[in-house]
Amino acid sequence: MQLHLSSWPEVEAYLTRSKAILIPIGSTEQHGPTGLLGTDALCAEFLAKRAGDEAGFLVGPTFNVGMAQHHMGFPGTLTLRPSTMIACMTDWANSLRRHGFERIYWLNGHGGNTGTISAAITALYHDTTFGDAAALRCMSRNWWELAGISDMIRELFPVGEGSHATPSEISITRYAYPEAIKRADLMPRIAPTGPVFDAKDFKRRFPDGRIGSDPTLANSGDGERLVNAVVRALIAEFGTFAKA
Amino acid sequence: MQLHLSSWPEVEAYLTRSKAILIPIGSTEQHGPTGLLGTDALCAEFLAKRAGDEAGFLVGPTFNVGMAQHHMGFPGTLTLRPSTMIACMTDWANSLRRHGFERIYWLNGHGGNTGTISAAITALYHDTTFGDAAALRCMSRNWWELAGISDMIRELFPVGEGSHATPSEISITRYAYPEAIKRADLMPRIAPTGPVFDAKDFKRRFPDGRIGSDPTLANSGDGERLVNAVVRALIAEFGTFAKA
Amino acid sequence: MQLHLSSWPEVEAYLTRSKAILIPIGSTEQHGPTGLLGTDALCAEFLAKRAGDEAGFLVGPTFNVGMAQHHMGFPGTLTLRPSTMIACMTDWANSLRRHGFERIYWLNGHGGNTGTISAAITALYHDTTFGDAAALRCMSRNWWELAGISDMIRELFPVGEGSHATPSEISITRYAYPEAIKRADLMPRIAPTGPVFDAKDFKRRFPDGRIGSDPTLANSGDGERLVNAVVRALIAEFGTFAKA
Amino acid sequence: MQLHLSSWPEVEAYLTRSKAILIPIGSTEQHGPTGLLGTDALCAEFLAKRAGDEAGFLVGPTFNVGMAQHHMGFPGTLTLRPSTMIACMTDWANSLRRHGFERIYWLNGHGGNTGTISAAITALYHDTTFGDAAALRCMSRNWWELAGISDMIRELFPVGEGSHATPSEISITRYAYPEAIKRADLMPRIAPTGPVFDAKDFKRRFPDGRIGSDPTLANSGDGERLVNAVVRALIAEFGTFAKA
Amino acid sequence: MQLHLSSWPEVEAYLTRSKAILIPIGSTEQHGPTGLLGTDALCAEFLAKRAGDEAGFLVGPTFNVGMAQHHMGFPGTLTLRPSTMIACMTDWANSLRRHGFERIYWLNGHGGNTGTISAAITALYHDTTFGDAAALRCMSRNWWELAGISDMIRELFPVGEGSHATPSEISITRYAYPEAIKRADLMPRIAPTGPVFDAKDFKRRFPDGRIGSDPTLANSGDGERLVNAVVRALIAEFGTFAKA
Amino acid sequence: MQLHLSSWPEVEAYLTRSKAILIPIGSTEQHGPTGLLGTDALCAEFLAKRAGDEAGFLVGPTFNVGMAQHHMGFPGTLTLRPSTMIACMTDWANSLRRHGFERIYWLNGHGGNTGTISAAITALYHDTTFGDAAALRCMSRNWWELAGISDMIRELFPVGEGSHATPSEISITRYAYPEAIKRADLMPRIAPTGPVFDAKDFKRRFPDGRIGSDPTLANSGDGERLVNAVVRALIAEFGTFAKA
Ligand code: NI
Ligand code: NI
Ligand code: NI
Ligand code: NI
Ligand code: NI
Ligand code: NI
Repeated sequence: MQLHLSSWPEVEAYLTRSKAILIPIGSTEQHGPTGLLGTDALCAEFLAKRAGDEAGFLVGPTFNVGMAQHHMGFPGTLTLRPSTMIACMTDWANSLRRHGFERIYWLNGHGGNTGTISAAITALYHDTTFGDAAALRCMSRNWWELAGISDMIRELFPVGEGSHATPSEISITRYAYPEAIKRADLMPRIAPTGPVFDAKDFKRRFPDGRIGSDPTLANSGDGERLVNAVVRALIAEFGTFAKA
Repeated sequence: MQLHLSSWPEVEAYLTRSKAILIPIGSTEQHGPTGLLGTDALCAEFLAKRAGDEAGFLVGPTFNVGMAQHHMGFPGTLTLRPSTMIACMTDWANSLRRHGFERIYWLNGHGGNTGTISAAITALYHDTTFGDAAALRCMSRNWWELAGISDMIRELFPVGEGSHATPSEISITRYAYPEAIKRADLMPRIAPTGPVFDAKDFKRRFPDGRIGSDPTLANSGDGERLVNAVVRALIAEFGTFAKA
Repeated sequence: MQLHLSSWPEVEAYLTRSKAILIPIGSTEQHGPTGLLGTDALCAEFLAKRAGDEAGFLVGPTFNVGMAQHHMGFPGTLTLRPSTMIACMTDWANSLRRHGFERIYWLNGHGGNTGTISAAITALYHDTTFGDAAALRCMSRNWWELAGISDMIRELFPVGEGSHATPSEISITRYAYPEAIKRADLMPRIAPTGPVFDAKDFKRRFPDGRIGSDPTLANSGDGERLVNAVVRALIAEFGTFAKA
Repeated sequence: MQLHLSSWPEVEAYLTRSKAILIPIGSTEQHGPTGLLGTDALCAEFLAKRAGDEAGFLVGPTFNVGMAQHHMGFPGTLTLRPSTMIACMTDWANSLRRHGFERIYWLNGHGGNTGTISAAITALYHDTTFGDAAALRCMSRNWWELAGISDMIRELFPVGEGSHATPSEISITRYAYPEAIKRADLMPRIAPTGPVFDAKDFKRRFPDGRIGSDPTLANSGDGERLVNAVVRALIAEFGTFAKA
Repeated sequence: MQLHLSSWPEVEAYLTRSKAILIPIGSTEQHGPTGLLGTDALCAEFLAKRAGDEAGFLVGPTFNVGMAQHHMGFPGTLTLRPSTMIACMTDWANSLRRHGFERIYWLNGHGGNTGTISAAITALYHDTTFGDAAALRCMSRNWWELAGISDMIRELFPVGEGSHATPSEISITRYAYPEAIKRADLMPRIAPTGPVFDAKDFKRRFPDGRIGSDPTLANSGDGERLVNAVVRALIAEFGTFAKA
Repeated sequence: MQLHLSSWPEVEAYLTRSKAILIPIGSTEQHGPTGLLGTDALCAEFLAKRAGDEAGFLVGPTFNVGMAQHHMGFPGTLTLRPSTMIACMTDWANSLRRHGFERIYWLNGHGGNTGTISAAITALYHDTTFGDAAALRCMSRNWWELAGISDMIRELFPVGEGSHATPSEISITRYAYPEAIKRADLMPRIAPTGPVFDAKDFKRRFPDGRIGSDPTLANSGDGERLVNAVVRALIAEFGTFAKA
């Protein structure tokens, strides 16, 4: 069940059976020569929709631009300042809290978001502690850290998974958006690795945008396998969280 | 051409032929018993995609939650504070400016956004005037105010168009999302009208969320007609703006 | 009755008969070679005072600096950032709300303020919806859009009214501030028109600051006629709003 | 010379002979049963105008609402949050800096403003130190602390001057606004004194709003004497500051 | 009793006998060739600890970085923007208020902090006046302005006390931190005086960082004398404030 | 070498040999019945000082209040809002950047800070990417995650380490502050574990403030062992970072 395709009476009815919602959250940032700029938001959105449809829980609109400062050397990347992202996430969540939601599960598609997501959740709790805002429980989960997924990724891509523009995330977008598959010669096959500082430094270290990955390994079939596994794990974890 | 389905080299190539981009902007808010919560964002997104695909210009991700404070009496509505929306829009635009974009056309699907959009654009110009940010031109257009569209709407729905949860916007979502058509008995057939103050007052005046509209008039066929007309007018106006 | 010339017991007494107040709001920005920098604030203030004195309602202090970013190419212009103006208007209004005022009518003298005024009003309603702030109703009106005024302006200045440094607003300041009448040769007689982007672009398009206007048409007599008409319309509209 | 009654070419011409401007800054807050709510802004404005007219320097618009939180127990008081006032003052000053002004003299009419004014000035210097904003010098002066004035006040009102709603400030408004003189029986004749905390505490300690003062001593003649003395001292200090 | 060396049950017990706490507040900024960068924070902290230990009241953690924009020309200086300092002080104080503290005494070691401290206190009161935050009383005291101290300083250092990097504050740090005594030839012996604007201007006027002072007069013995006197005066004033 | 005990010429000299600095960062929050409220700040500060003294690098003042919202149910806890902490950390770091520092190593003593620290570092990089701020590299390290430390902790406290008010951190404060050792009967010996949401929920789950830990295991000897090991690992990691 997707919030943006529902009417308000449908959401009102949903609230009589559950106070929990899932918000997909990602980023719009370069993913190397063959990855989609929307990869992180699209993965979270696609996985959330599948799980929500299958298990009957509510999925909110996608938070599609996040913390991507370090990718700003590559055209098309959009980024928020951390203070903006905190303000924005708290506005979304306070709107939901006002309607009676008591559990928000943020399904995250972008590692770079984690710090700021945790800061935003603290800000939300602050209003319960210092003001009279209703109690709210939030959790955030990177989809590749759901139960069993990192093991599966290691099996599918024992070499060349890397940490940005990975074959696993690109496999998912290939499966979900077959009309948007890109091809390019990648040199070197496996991208360099290293620490991440600001955008200019990033561009010097990782000239085509990939970190440690070989996205030529990406393929629709593995994308489907990953989607199925993530959806199963997500339904389980969301279900537990919703009832906690 | 959609930014989130493109790679960074594709955006880099686009920038050699155009410095203009379109951002669909809407809201996630109640649209009466039969309208989708996502109506305003979905209309802007759908119209933008069609026009961008047809005319070959770049369409950014959808800004899907906006100013919907007055709709907060209805479950599922999400709203930003004005200061958050200004911060968020300026972050999106500054990211684009940093990549060399010089024209941003905001295609708006929600009347309640107009004031804050104009405030955000002023904030963007501020950085050019007071700092050394590159010059940027923005324009914002409500899709129903594109050339010829309000006349067309008056012809299609001479009675019952109203101003919120209108048959014209719901026709577009019926055409674009046939799988999400809702039905309900509406009483009265044509909703009351009146001024808009805060959310509690709104709920008292407009108990089912509609203002002056009869959305039972909405239908896919008129949706398609509207989409075609808007897309034509949008391509023309965006083209002029991009070259100005 | 002007708030700044009243004592607190007088305001306390006023509140027993009315919960409504008018705040004049304008801008301090260039108005061409012959217009006063204070035109927009002075017009709103003068019209408000006349109406308040005649009809016995309370007029607050003048909000005298607004959104004038695009006029910053001309010495003497002052501007707020949109976020500052929203913060400032909400502080003024929250102070009034705290004293028991329930209706604030913003009489606006500057078209460039409208977007930000509407954003600020939304911010005020937000505190009622999300917090426990008392309900408040705001409306904002550009004085030239009061009932009958635009028709009158068209009659008085069928050619050369334009949209900035207009003969109508300058007529009002000539009538109100006869000691501050300026003269200059204007070339061309009627200023160019065009879109408004940032301050540097504005200065290029409109080298002497006027947009589409011929302020040599301005005169005290027409100023007086306008003032009388606006005051009548304003008293009527404020009266209705105060009782709504 | 008053900025709001000048045209932009007049300000442009002024800048060729001086880079200094005076901004009157006050408050809109209760001043006891007989003092005007606008006292602090009106005094600063009136004194500034007189001095500017006599000595030919430029006087900006009046910053008419300030820090008056502790007076909020009395109807008609308006107050800014400190962060709003800092944002607002920096926007005014940055606008002036952008036009080439290098000296801003804030003539203050309200003791409660001093802390926040000094914080705002620090914020302005911050932009020179950390960014590339032009150097700017600010000074702030409470009018009753200009050379010789406190001695004069002690002579005029050896008993009953107090610290809020003082006979000296009320004498000035009586002289400047004879049409707005209020009368009331004051009990006790000399108001109590004590520390100032929040608004509720203030109202308990100072039930009619005065602190330590006997405003029945206020009179137009002493107002005129004070105005003349302040204007002389102000012209001298501003002149020195403008050339420093 | 120092909060950071206490457990929460100890603070809970303290709150049953007193609702008052002292927060030392200073700055980290250059203090001339021989003064410690931490002088202002260290003095406030040392004096507070002594007094708290002797009189049994609670001393919170030290607010160790403040308003030092004008010292930024000298390596090692740290500074907050005023808005940051206000936010930070209000967060500290709101945390204490939440636990039931009703009196916060800020012992200040840096003259440049006074304006912003007073703005922050106003912000705290704002939440009581406009919201439902518990009533809170704050006071702020520069240690050299405690009863009798400025007289004592005049006696100890009749010449060369100056106003920054003074022999009195450096005497205290010599007494408190004998392991960190610095020596340098100072030229001129007594530093120049003058007004303080931005950091670049400051560095030009006061090339080694001192203002009007001769810190070669500083010595441990006078430091001890000052400490003893300040501690006595502080205990008295804090005691009165805590009970008021 | 500690910044607050240095003079500005000493820092100037340091900058000729290194552009790197370490900032200890912690929290002031309850640490169970026997842990000090300052534990997290004190550990980071003590470890940093030891390492800086031994290896000759510069240690800045301690950032002593952090993200402790969830501990607010226990008296004495202080917390910042995430936006305040980001503003504050960026002000500290921008001051250092302005003096020529190019590497900031944040030694963190509080797990709850990690998200907000990473958000703040992104904010700092933002100014390099979008503005003309000098490039800066930051890293943040929780002291218990330095090379070899978690293994050592597992050996020292195989049972009862837990995750808050741990025997390892309390051992360090016992070693560093022997004068502040607290004793209490703890029931149960090993505290419960569970997820962390807002402060009220935290207090219900963890009534005495500990999570999963048995701090009766804490002792000075193990504190000393930990300190020695951490200092060694810290010197190594800081050295590498400073030269990178
Ligand atoms: Ni990714
Ligand atoms: Ni709509
Ligand atoms: Ni105008
Ligand atoms: Ni006054
Ligand atoms: Ni000092
Ligand atoms: Ni800890």
